[in-house]
Amino acid sequence: MRIKEEAHKMKLVAPVLAASSNEERNRALEAVAQALREAREEIFAANREDLARAKEEGISDAVLKRLKFDEGKLNDVVNGIHQLVKLPDPIGKKTLTRELDEGLVLERVSCPIGVIGVIFEARPDALVQISSLCIKSGNCAILKGGKETRTTNKVLFDRIYQSVVEAGLPEGCMLQAELHNEIDELLECEKDVDLLIPRGSNRFVQYIMNHTRIPVMGHADGVCHVYVDKGADMDKAIPIILDAKLQYTAACNAAETLLVDRAIAESFLPRAAMALKEAGVKLRGTPEAAGIIEAEEMTEEEFHTEYLEPLMSVKLVDGVQEAVDHINRFGSHHTDAIITEDPKAADYFLTMVDSAGVYQNCSTRFADGFRYGFGAEVGISTSKIHARGPVGLEGLMTYKYLLRGQGQIVADYSEGRKEYHFKDL
Amino acid sequence: MRIKEEAHKMKLVAPVLAASSNEERNRALEAVAQALREAREEIFAANREDLARAKEEGISDAVLKRLKFDEGKLNDVVNGIHQLVKLPDPIGKKTLTRELDEGLVLERVSCPIGVIGVIFEARPDALVQISSLCIKSGNCAILKGGKETRTTNKVLFDRIYQSVVEAGLPEGCMLQAELHNEIDELLECEKDVDLLIPRGSNRFVQYIMNHTRIPVMGHADGVCHVYVDKGADMDKAIPIILDAKLQYTAACNAAETLLVDRAIAESFLPRAAMALKEAGVKLRGTPEAAGIIEAEEMTEEEFHTEYLEPLMSVKLVDGVQEAVDHINRFGSHHTDAIITEDPKAADYFLTMVDSAGVYQNCSTRFADGFRYGFGAEVGISTSKIHARGPVGLEGLMTYKYLLRGQGQIVADYSEGRKEYHFKDL
Repeated sequence: MRIKEEAHKMKLVAPVLAASSNEERNRALEAVAQALREAREEIFAANREDLARAKEEGISDAVLKRLKFDEGKLNDVVNGIHQLVKLPDPIGKKTLTRELDEGLVLERVSCPIGVIGVIFEARPDALVQISSLCIKSGNCAILKGGKETRTTNKVLFDRIYQSVVEAGLPEGCMLQAELHNEIDELLECEKDVDLLIPRGSNRFVQYIMNHTRIPVMGHADGVCHVYVDKGADMDKAIPIILDAKLQYTAACNAAETLLVDRAIAESFLPRAAMALKEAGVKLRGTPEAAGIIEAEEMTEEEFHTEYLEPLMSVKLVDGVQEAVDHINRFGSHHTDAIITEDPKAADYFLTMVDSAGVYQNCSTRFADGFRYGFGAEVGISTSKIHARGPVGLEGLMTYKYLLRGQGQIVADYSEGRKEYHFKDL
Repeated sequence: MRIKEEAHKMKLVAPVLAASSNEERNRALEAVAQALREAREEIFAANREDLARAKEEGISDAVLKRLKFDEGKLNDVVNGIHQLVKLPDPIGKKTLTRELDEGLVLERVSCPIGVIGVIFEARPDALVQISSLCIKSGNCAILKGGKETRTTNKVLFDRIYQSVVEAGLPEGCMLQAELHNEIDELLECEKDVDLLIPRGSNRFVQYIMNHTRIPVMGHADGVCHVYVDKGADMDKAIPIILDAKLQYTAACNAAETLLVDRAIAESFLPRAAMALKEAGVKLRGTPEAAGIIEAEEMTEEEFHTEYLEPLMSVKLVDGVQEAVDHINRFGSHHTDAIITEDPKAADYFLTMVDSAGVYQNCSTRFADGFRYGFGAEVGISTSKIHARGPVGLEGLMTYKYLLRGQGQIVADYSEGRKEYHFKDL
């Protein structure tokens, strides 16, 4: 019951943290950066423990790389913190100031969401990034990281929390969940937790969505497309496809499907297939595509698949309109790109594709909070509600309406003695 | 299976509607206004049928008033439509333009959410308001109104849909669900419906939230507070309390709890109690309050109650800080007011109360889309995610990121051959 009790207390800490000044939150961030630097040996030792245990458990080298927290990663997260410090205060931005009537003024002001629960994969740098974003945005955070890095996480969290409180932010503004069953406890805190951000596999995110009444911000799949239009510059197309597919195949913004305009299929597709094959990508395709290039035949339904490996689906379409229909039906509304020099085709694609990111002549792999200049991200949202695409500070904010009057009552307006005059100030 | 099939088609209509111009959507709205005026006799006749059936079923006079759709209500909704036409286009607003690197420009642009399901109470004017908001905001809508006005709803919907399509908006952009079991079908359309907005009782909204994977925007309770601070002008306080409690007791923004600063309890509370009693309000209170005024004693837990009738809870608190703690713990984060002339107490209250609306010296009843100058509202959100408070056009929008490049790939940046320079344009 520890999480429930702590979350219940945190609910009343949240407005106190929300009322802190940008200076106070920046001071806390600077203190965190310094504390992490000072505790480097302790952090690395804890990480060596995690790595040794992981190796014993036979965890693959690819995953071990993510678990590792070394000098390079420490520098990265510390630099990230310094970048966050430089960003303007996200709290208290006025997005509306309206006089409803004389002496009755409405304001809409940005404020933190309140209490956010983040459940993330075994990556110590993620813990630091998420904590820093929550501190800068004035949100209380309950953090649960992957168990494979629990020793590192504990040291990192303890150092961060201690610095934050010593720097003057309220006690109880951050909490670390350490046990796996505490996730289920967290899912039941709908009275006290305002938002959950699960990161990890599609199946994990779905599990969270299906087992809580707390709003969830997350992404389901990353079925991203590159569409090569007949107006494409083929010399741009090939490197973009290779980058989108291969630069990091396990990422959600990696491309899974290549759509090619039928008008250029005979000339372009063999070139693209050769480049992909040379780079180690296996192709699957419709019978029509498999008639032009070497590709395993696949069914229509399989175009929903997120491969996350050097495998790519190929389909021919009759121009940009059919490409858009395919993407809107089979995609996951994450990030999709058109390769074309034709401004009309590009406009149509960017307007009609219903995805968080719609790109012209660049790689889908740019969909990322750091690459968008957000400093950091807590995740990428494929939901259309609240935040879409990479979620940085702004996605962690909500707003409230402030109304200041001099004794105004509604009856005077309903009964015609007074009238609203709505004047934006 | 009608709803599922239609929603599945609607998913591909949504980008077409989203790409319509403000002129086209305004023309459709004008056509709707004219069609409703022309069909007035048919609408009133249908409404008389609904009213006759409702009377036979013994429905109360208060509810009958809501079911009624007469000349006055027709004028109101037609005026509402004309107001919406005048509002600026909510689609295509650029909220970010940033050069990530030379020739690689990121834009964030507002766009409709897509397909929205609205389930609302038996009020024909609500059907018109919600439809108009969806048309103006470029959202496809699946509408299910209360069964008591089904005959009126059918006539209204048919006229609206016909006008919209004749005015050039895409076929299939609106759909009416008529059968009660179609609600359950709608709840299962998580692949095609982007957002559900249920209106009605707290129990109903909870039911929807617990039975769907579609994001839900709604409000749970309206437990609103008026706090009278020791710095209050008592002559303002009494009319505000009466208005907040009584101007429309069944509304979610009506006040349920009166908090009074202990420092002025002896002088103020008897005056307030007398005014409330004269206006027909019964009081309940803590033993302490019941020692000063005539009030039924109540327990702490009962302060969570939304009465929606001329009944009010009373409690004494030690100044603004205790008032805030009480509101954040027992309120529903809807709308809460402080009565004070003391700017420090007001600032503290407005900053620290964690509600969609925080007011100084005016009635909680102002929490309403029309009164905020939004033209209309689809509902009031007590969630902090996406939209908070009265939800007008802006609450029905999301955004997408557009990235236009000239062949840029991520590998060049990851491997140090190029660098982002982030320049807001």
